[in-house]
Amino acid sequence: MPTVTMIGGGQLARMTHQAAIALGQCLRVLAASPGDPAAQVSADVVLGSHDELDDLRTAAAGAVALTFDHEGVPLEHLRALEADGVAVRPPSKALRFAQDKLDMRNRLSDLGLPVPEYADLSGDVASARERLIAFGEANRWDVVIKAVRGGYDGRGVWLVGGRDEALDVFDAQSGGDTVLMAEQKVTMRRELSAMVARSPYGQGAAWPVVETVQRNGQCAVVLAPAPDLDPEVAERAQQMALRLADELGVVGAMAMELFETADGELVVNELAMRPHNSGHWTMDGAVTSQFEQHLRAVLDYPLGDTSARAEVTVMANVLGAERAPAMSVDERMHHLFARMPDAKVHMYGKGERADRKVGHVNIVGRPGEDVAVVRERAERAAHWMSHAVWTDGWNPHD
Amino acid sequence: MPTVTMIGGGQLARMTHQAAIALGQCLRVLAASPGDPAAQVSADVVLGSHDELDDLRTAAAGAVALTFDHEGVPLEHLRALEADGVAVRPPSKALRFAQDKLDMRNRLSDLGLPVPEYADLSGDVASARERLIAFGEANRWDVVIKAVRGGYDGRGVWLVGGRDEALDVFDAQSGGDTVLMAEQKVTMRRELSAMVARSPYGQGAAWPVVETVQRNGQCAVVLAPAPDLDPEVAERAQQMALRLADELGVVGAMAMELFETADGELVVNELAMRPHNSGHWTMDGAVTSQFEQHLRAVLDYPLGDTSARAEVTVMANVLGAERAPAMSVDERMHHLFARMPDAKVHMYGKGERADRKVGHVNIVGRPGEDVAVVRERAERAAHWMSHAVWTDGWNPHD
Repeated sequence: MPTVTMIGGGQLARMTHQAAIALGQCLRVLAASPGDPAAQVSADVVLGSHDELDDLRTAAAGAVALTFDHEGVPLEHLRALEADGVAVRPPSKALRFAQDKLDMRNRLSDLGLPVPEYADLSGDVASARERLIAFGEANRWDVVIKAVRGGYDGRGVWLVGGRDEALDVFDAQSGGDTVLMAEQKVTMRRELSAMVARSPYGQGAAWPVVETVQRNGQCAVVLAPAPDLDPEVAERAQQMALRLADELGVVGAMAMELFETADGELVVNELAMRPHNSGHWTMDGAVTSQFEQHLRAVLDYPLGDTSARAEVTVMANVLGAERAPAMSVDERMHHLFARMPDAKVHMYGKGERADRKVGHVNIVGRPGEDVAVVRERAERAAHWMSHAVWTDGWNPHD
Repeated sequence: MPTVTMIGGGQLARMTHQAAIALGQCLRVLAASPGDPAAQVSADVVLGSHDELDDLRTAAAGAVALTFDHEGVPLEHLRALEADGVAVRPPSKALRFAQDKLDMRNRLSDLGLPVPEYADLSGDVASARERLIAFGEANRWDVVIKAVRGGYDGRGVWLVGGRDEALDVFDAQSGGDTVLMAEQKVTMRRELSAMVARSPYGQGAAWPVVETVQRNGQCAVVLAPAPDLDPEVAERAQQMALRLADELGVVGAMAMELFETADGELVVNELAMRPHNSGHWTMDGAVTSQFEQHLRAVLDYPLGDTSARAEVTVMANVLGAERAPAMSVDERMHHLFARMPDAKVHMYGKGERADRKVGHVNIVGRPGEDVAVVRERAERAAHWMSHAVWTDGWNPHD
């Protein structure tokens, strides 16, 4: 059976390895350390850095395809691998848009896809500052400042309160290697994610559009499908994601994060060209998980059925607590299973740090169960796993 | 997180490793070779033999529990490990009944559970031969001869056509290390399997009772739940399995294979104290798979929800063909996925040999879909993976 290499040893690689096992394969991972989530569980680990071309070449040797659990690999290395004949999936020509928010905004605009107003703050600092001031004034300072590269889970995004704060952020962050851009703050009803996958053959497949709930700038909860979403809007989101994947030549899973505005319009927020937090629900809630689908796509297998397996599935992230609970993860899992025998827990083998994603819980709703009820159970389970506290105050000793 | 060791590197260990990953763990496997199905995919492999106590001790070091993917470990070694303080699960006092069909029959009889008539053919060969003749005459030679130890997938079981054949088998097999027994051939409607799990705490959980379809003495297809099974009979089968697991002190998953007789009675056929082929459907068709449940049980976690996730799930084994098909496994999978995007394929990373179990396919029925339709799809998929031939004669080039 073929070998696929994934660059990065994080939880996305860990869960992709689970899917690889079913397909008769073993995922090879390039990991920084043997303690990385995927390196803990795969029999085929190359230790090294995604910044070192030699390490990338070692990891790619003999593999039928090379793919990614993050966007951090330098573009020039990807191009060098492609020149070597490595099947880089998604290819560098697509991945550059996931690495560079400004390129992505420009490309989306060119394609006529809806994006927020934005301003390029790259280049000479003094003139970029002038452009920020002009953009801020034009948007009543309802703006967000973003690092063009390298941000994730709320890092590299500054929600500023007005002109002074915006300029403070600009002055503190600009110059050096950091390139900034500004965006109009979108007045939105909620955030959505349209996940699709695309194979080199050109086949595309879309999962149901989900609602994502962010806390502290990172995904906390996913409701699948997005409750009460107008079917026409859902289909539009899927079509936008499928079209973009096709236009950019994406291979693998792709998440298009969207804002749903108060008047039901869609605006593209972010793109990820890999399995994504907003697709974790598919592990238990869809016929084909995003991890299996990502592998099928990078292998150019026909894609799997993306149907939901239940009316409602809710995913809640397990985040590290500010202070480690008195109970070990193992003990917390024991108590969770005692109380919620249907909770599907996925732990990543990571040490706990405040707000770090260390696992997630999926709750697949029972027939007819309301999304609010399923969500309450998922959040209760995840909060328990984070804090060893039941959100409903339950105490078995009462 | 705790480490569980599984003795044996076969497909059951491979699939248990998949479940371990979700629980934040990595399954340690004692495997004979790095090419064993589980050794191909786990980061924690001890190479060695399950017949060597030193290897077993090496594999057990630091693990919170030791469990099994087969029944082949010598009982004296298990007792030595228990004397070392290793948590052997299931414990030797239970596992001996899964290792020895005669002990098992005797114990089941003592417990008043329904078993076929049987005769002990151990001890002095001449007197055992006399006992076989007496047993055969009393049962009109409707008998089966079985090796008391070591049989699986039809090996060690002889369906004999009459007195002469029975005595031929006896004369050829008896003596040496092989101990035999004879059993009455049960006139049955079909075979069932009642799978349960039990934790050291004493919690028990039963999956829906399934129908198993045997070919050439090994499991070929599993229909979950068993179609048109009288609910009272189903519950009786579950209660029998739960009671037996409790009486024997089983820890982990246990399969009780049963005959349903023409008049709706149940007779116990075989026992397995581990994940079992008749439980593979749970990977896609139940809230908790048998592999996760087995781990939960050996870790003494509370057990998971055993509910079916659909009205019907059908599992079909992928067996090696007599002659290797012209198409590689990889190509076969490609074509399967093109035709059946909802087929859930689980390949074991094993070389193909005639009738060897190299994978399985689960088809989860759509709401309202008839079991015969789901079965046809599962068998079509598995036969394709075995032979690169569509059972319905489909040809994309027609």
